[in-house]
Amino acid sequence: YAPTRCAAAQTSTEQGILPPCHHHETVHDPQLVPCTCPLFSCPWEGHLEVVVSHLRQTHRINILQGAEIVFLATDMHLPAPTDWIIMHSCLGHQFLLVLRKQEKYEGHPQFFATMMLIGTPTQADNFTYRLELNRNQRRLKWEATPRSVLECVDSVISDGDCLVLNTSLAQLFSDNGSLAIGIAITTSKVHSAEAEM
Amino acid sequence: YAPTRCAAAQTSTEQGILPPCHHHETVHDPQLVPCTCPLFSCPWEGHLEVVVSHLRQTHRINILQGAEIVFLATDMHLPAPTDWIIMHSCLGHQFLLVLRKQEKYEGHPQFFATMMLIGTPTQADNFTYRLELNRNQRRLKWEATPRSVLECVDSVISDGDCLVLNTSLAQLFSDNGSLAIGIAITTSKVHSAEAEM
Repeated sequence: YAPTRCAAAQTSTEQGILPPCHHHETVHDPQLVPCTCPLFSCPWEGHLEVVVSHLRQTHRINILQGAEIVFLATDMHLPAPTDWIIMHSCLGHQFLLVLRKQEKYEGHPQFFATMMLIGTPTQADNFTYRLELNRNQRRLKWEATPRSVLECVDSVISDGDCLVLNTSLAQLFSDNGSLAIGIAITTSKVHSAEAEM
Repeated sequence: YAPTRCAAAQTSTEQGILPPCHHHETVHDPQLVPCTCPLFSCPWEGHLEVVVSHLRQTHRINILQGAEIVFLATDMHLPAPTDWIIMHSCLGHQFLLVLRKQEKYEGHPQFFATMMLIGTPTQADNFTYRLELNRNQRRLKWEATPRSVLECVDSVISDGDCLVLNTSLAQLFSDNGSLAIGIAITTSKVHSAEAEM
């Protein structure tokens, strides 16, 4: 993959490439996170406990607080591949929103959005995340169980198990090149008790 | 386009082509509906008032009643182009759900779902429709204003201004090759008064 640009990490990306940050250990540690840093070109590996500080310090990724937040992804016109990333601190955990523009089919970029828990798959099963777009009398909502960052974000996106937008839908929901994504996290027990459907 | 198959109109489609039904008039009548019959290969034109009977009688399309219904689209594996169509009678009007499998990009079929009001664009503006998929702890909702059948369904779909599913998402929401689509219609005033968002 070519180096990617991360709207949430402009200091890194303005240099054109992401800074190298190899912390590989010679002895394989099963608790090492294999591909936790979801930025395309970052080969960093590390324990779960230090993923947040890696993302903050190396990639300057912000943390937003609160059960319901809105993340504004700017410059949606940037060429694929591009990542937009934000951390979301909620219910005692940190989550990662990854919005990726990628050309699965050459010449036809799509947007893929998913949330990952910075935690184990067992912990992730306790939560439900919701992504919501709302503009021009149109509304699109995606709800699912977050994956763990111990699973690779690339496979989530290549499986298409996430919110998928083609460019025409992304334009309908964008305002002046920016996409506002409403994000909410609930615990799964709350979710299954919903009488909404 | 090649002749399409409509799961809701098997008697027509089992013959491989849809029955011809040319009712063209020599004097152009501005109230004639230009492309009301959304089935790919049907060239029928007619007044708004007779669209429902055309769809029922010629294409054997069923009408479901009620504010909230579930339409089960079967045989999702059928090759593109394929249409699944149902009429929905609700709030004193008839609506048309069109689910179309189409290859915008060769070799990559996608599913497009939209609702049309069998009425004028001004009437359509009074309503909001919701399509909802719910399976495997995933939920996808699309809400928008229905288009009028006086506008061409082909252009709605080619503009991508509808619920769009790639095949992997469609498989995640399908059960044994069938896709259950929850459909709800509300009046726009009810919708704007919602405190949900």
